[in-house]
Amino acid sequence: MTPKSPQDSHTIMNELVLPNDTNTLNNLMGGRLLHWMDIAAAIAAQKHCNRIVVTASVDTVSFKHPVKLGDVISIESKVTRAFNTSVEVRLDVWAQNIPSGTKVKSNEAYYTFVALDGDSRVVPVPELIPQTEEDLMYFDGALRRRQLRLVLAGRMKAEDATELKALFFKA
Amino acid sequence: MTPKSPQDSHTIMNELVLPNDTNTLNNLMGGRLLHWMDIAAAIAAQKHCNRIVVTASVDTVSFKHPVKLGDVISIESKVTRAFNTSVEVRLDVWAQNIPSGTKVKSNEAYYTFVALDGDSRVVPVPELIPQTEEDLMYFDGALRRRQLRLVLAGRMKAEDATELKALFFKA
Amino acid sequence: MTPKSPQDSHTIMNELVLPNDTNTLNNLMGGRLLHWMDIAAAIAAQKHCNRIVVTASVDTVSFKHPVKLGDVISIESKVTRAFNTSVEVRLDVWAQNIPSGTKVKSNEAYYTFVALDGDSRVVPVPELIPQTEEDLMYFDGALRRRQLRLVLAGRMKAEDATELKALFFKA
Amino acid sequence: MTPKSPQDSHTIMNELVLPNDTNTLNNLMGGRLLHWMDIAAAIAAQKHCNRIVVTASVDTVSFKHPVKLGDVISIESKVTRAFNTSVEVRLDVWAQNIPSGTKVKSNEAYYTFVALDGDSRVVPVPELIPQTEEDLMYFDGALRRRQLRLVLAGRMKAEDATELKALFFKA
Amino acid sequence: MTPKSPQDSHTIMNELVLPNDTNTLNNLMGGRLLHWMDIAAAIAAQKHCNRIVVTASVDTVSFKHPVKLGDVISIESKVTRAFNTSVEVRLDVWAQNIPSGTKVKSNEAYYTFVALDGDSRVVPVPELIPQTEEDLMYFDGALRRRQLRLVLAGRMKAEDATELKALFFKA
Amino acid sequence: MTPKSPQDSHTIMNELVLPNDTNTLNNLMGGRLLHWMDIAAAIAAQKHCNRIVVTASVDTVSFKHPVKLGDVISIESKVTRAFNTSVEVRLDVWAQNIPSGTKVKSNEAYYTFVALDGDSRVVPVPELIPQTEEDLMYFDGALRRRQLRLVLAGRMKAEDATELKALFFKA
Repeated sequence: MTPKSPQDSHTIMNELVLPNDTNTLNNLMGGRLLHWMDIAAAIAAQKHCNRIVVTASVDTVSFKHPVKLGDVISIESKVTRAFNTSVEVRLDVWAQNIPSGTKVKSNEAYYTFVALDGDSRVVPVPELIPQTEEDLMYFDGALRRRQLRLVLAGRMKAEDATELKALFFKA
Repeated sequence: MTPKSPQDSHTIMNELVLPNDTNTLNNLMGGRLLHWMDIAAAIAAQKHCNRIVVTASVDTVSFKHPVKLGDVISIESKVTRAFNTSVEVRLDVWAQNIPSGTKVKSNEAYYTFVALDGDSRVVPVPELIPQTEEDLMYFDGALRRRQLRLVLAGRMKAEDATELKALFFKA
Repeated sequence: MTPKSPQDSHTIMNELVLPNDTNTLNNLMGGRLLHWMDIAAAIAAQKHCNRIVVTASVDTVSFKHPVKLGDVISIESKVTRAFNTSVEVRLDVWAQNIPSGTKVKSNEAYYTFVALDGDSRVVPVPELIPQTEEDLMYFDGALRRRQLRLVLAGRMKAEDATELKALFFKA
Repeated sequence: MTPKSPQDSHTIMNELVLPNDTNTLNNLMGGRLLHWMDIAAAIAAQKHCNRIVVTASVDTVSFKHPVKLGDVISIESKVTRAFNTSVEVRLDVWAQNIPSGTKVKSNEAYYTFVALDGDSRVVPVPELIPQTEEDLMYFDGALRRRQLRLVLAGRMKAEDATELKALFFKA
Repeated sequence: MTPKSPQDSHTIMNELVLPNDTNTLNNLMGGRLLHWMDIAAAIAAQKHCNRIVVTASVDTVSFKHPVKLGDVISIESKVTRAFNTSVEVRLDVWAQNIPSGTKVKSNEAYYTFVALDGDSRVVPVPELIPQTEEDLMYFDGALRRRQLRLVLAGRMKAEDATELKALFFKA
Repeated sequence: MTPKSPQDSHTIMNELVLPNDTNTLNNLMGGRLLHWMDIAAAIAAQKHCNRIVVTASVDTVSFKHPVKLGDVISIESKVTRAFNTSVEVRLDVWAQNIPSGTKVKSNEAYYTFVALDGDSRVVPVPELIPQTEEDLMYFDGALRRRQLRLVLAGRMKAEDATELKALFFKA
């Protein structure tokens, strides 16, 4: 399998916030955004793996600003690191109110996906080679985020999470 | 404001997995489940606060088992702790294939919500009083999870996250 | 087939009333509620039969109170009686406006379902054994409601509907 | 208010059965059909009343034949009788599989609607004048069906339902 | 294959404009209407061909009047001419605001469809025999519209489009 | 109003083809694609105008290749020319089957939009200044396409459509 760059999986998605996506204050509901982010991330993961992919996890997501009915949500996604049979995808999300010309960063998030063949069996994925300094920063961070996921899922002991300590305690 | 118990906000939601919720392997897409979980959690948060609520964050969620077209997703949600103007909600999610009689735990997750008045201003919420030993365990853990959210969002320094250290390093 | 109790099929569903569910007065449309009730009833019927089920009929439903955008619809369903290859399911529906703390009974209804195997052939279903006095009341009434359905569908002569006479004329 | 004929409210609706309308056997779910029937009936009721209308009740509906994915559902609706502030609408529903050239009667049903002004207050509706023999038959039957609804809703005593006795007992 | 008349494929569809179909000014979005028109046209094409059909093209559509939330869209469709393996369908679209009693012509459009067998292979379709003067006018115009499509798609040279010249230049 | 370049309105949208978007052959329905294209075009038009926009017309669209369930539709849109109160938007549409690594051009199309203020009144829009040779080609063609729309809508006589003659008859 030919290694790929983050740019190979780079995906842009724009969605218009419609009435059914909002609550009674006309704000976009968080779950609807998580749903769109999952699709944007899955497309990026598919592009890297050239496989059907299924969501394995979503890391902590914070919602800082209300997004309003009629706004446009822009999601950019790309693969940050490949593991044996899975990939981590970073998402950057903006909310634009185009008539008033505003655009604010809404979220950053990481989703992971597992690659499957047509019989739903897990399959290996191509390597990811970071290209830019930013790519490298995300590539490095992926190890720490992976350990955090494993600790939170009870599948790794905290004391073994050496990378994670670096994330939290810079020691 | 009268304090409330976790039972006061306990909510059960059942959803049938329909074709548009699935990928080409007929598996439920993760983002669709996150969307349903957000609604189930928001209803619990509303019940506690008697206010309109908006999603503030979702903690790391792992998807362990594929959920199939035609399965029934059962979501139970309840408030685990109230802070000044926000609440943490725990979700337990099961997937049932009823014709074959199987039921597996699909996910556990924590969402947080902020309470708003009719003018979208943040408002105080009632206190939560844990009742059972389990309630108490979730109530205690909420502090640690809150610190993790703050550290991950860059709003708290890791060295100040005293509760979090207890979570990860049992020291 | 092991007989079952009504509790075995008891199902709770909560749905948030979104903009697309409402008319221009912001009231929930009756047909949308009938759709949700069908899904809640089908899940209960599936639980009793451990089979795929299809809707055979819905009895007269009245809509007494307007339900508003943003309200939460709570539906409880359970099997009241099993016939050879079909079951009757009772639904109790409430509408809650959680911010204002109101909860009103919206509807009661009966749906019936037929159980099918994987080749769409009708199959026998387990017996239902009522447990409580209330269970027994619904179990007894099921015969009368069945006769009413048959008479209305032109498949039973009114003069043969002995149970039905008891329902209408208490004689 | 000028009286109207059933033809003035006659409405035809055609809907294509899509994947999300079906269960795992690829059969149209009953609740989805009840939803479409409600919309077709509401349009007919609106045409008669020239008012916003809300569903007041749906009479017993039986589902006789499975309807398949890709079939076309044809619904015809028209007002059969006007009361003070409400109307009864009759629906005739067919399912067509157009590639194979089949068309079967799927359902007949009656929905009732109440007319509202812009402030959600109940308002009087125009009289309905039956034109044909068939119109007259439905017009006459409307009184009996209305009594059945009232008896089933516990708002009329069965012994007072003189028209209803004629329906059931032809005496 | 027995020839058919335009009346054989005549189809009426009524759709209620719901919140998710509208923009922030509460006007029906053009794309949603094009989607409904495609379904109404496909049903007419299916009726003529008794085959599965897929959209081959849509001709220029203009949107003249805003259509509002709560309006009813009425679409009439019928086949105007059959070619070897395809048909042209004419659509007439009205928007009704029923409470205020208004009904305006919203659009006219032509969609073309190709007929397929169960293996997705193109198949011949029955001939269309126009019955009325209006049928004949649409039948004749179909040739010119077909040439315009071919020229616009770069599949016919403008100088060979003899019928098209008649359309534009009446010479 | 500051003039803008086509790049200022450039918009990318990616959509996953889900079951409800497809017919019984698992092909994307044309109307669904027209709906997505309308949203992608409206976002580009909004970006140029910084106004709410409504669809005024869609030019002839041909559907050449079947698009399958699970494919990803990529739509690129940008404004090609501004008129007084309206803009023309060009769309380029690709269909990708990512697991098999195929990507085919699906469609090209032109939509036009009118800009409105908050009271639904038509308002002037900024000028568009083409930057590249390609921009210039689309800018020039816009006049001809506009004449074709006006002729087809019966609002311009064919003999006055001087630009259009250049399009069709290169004379």
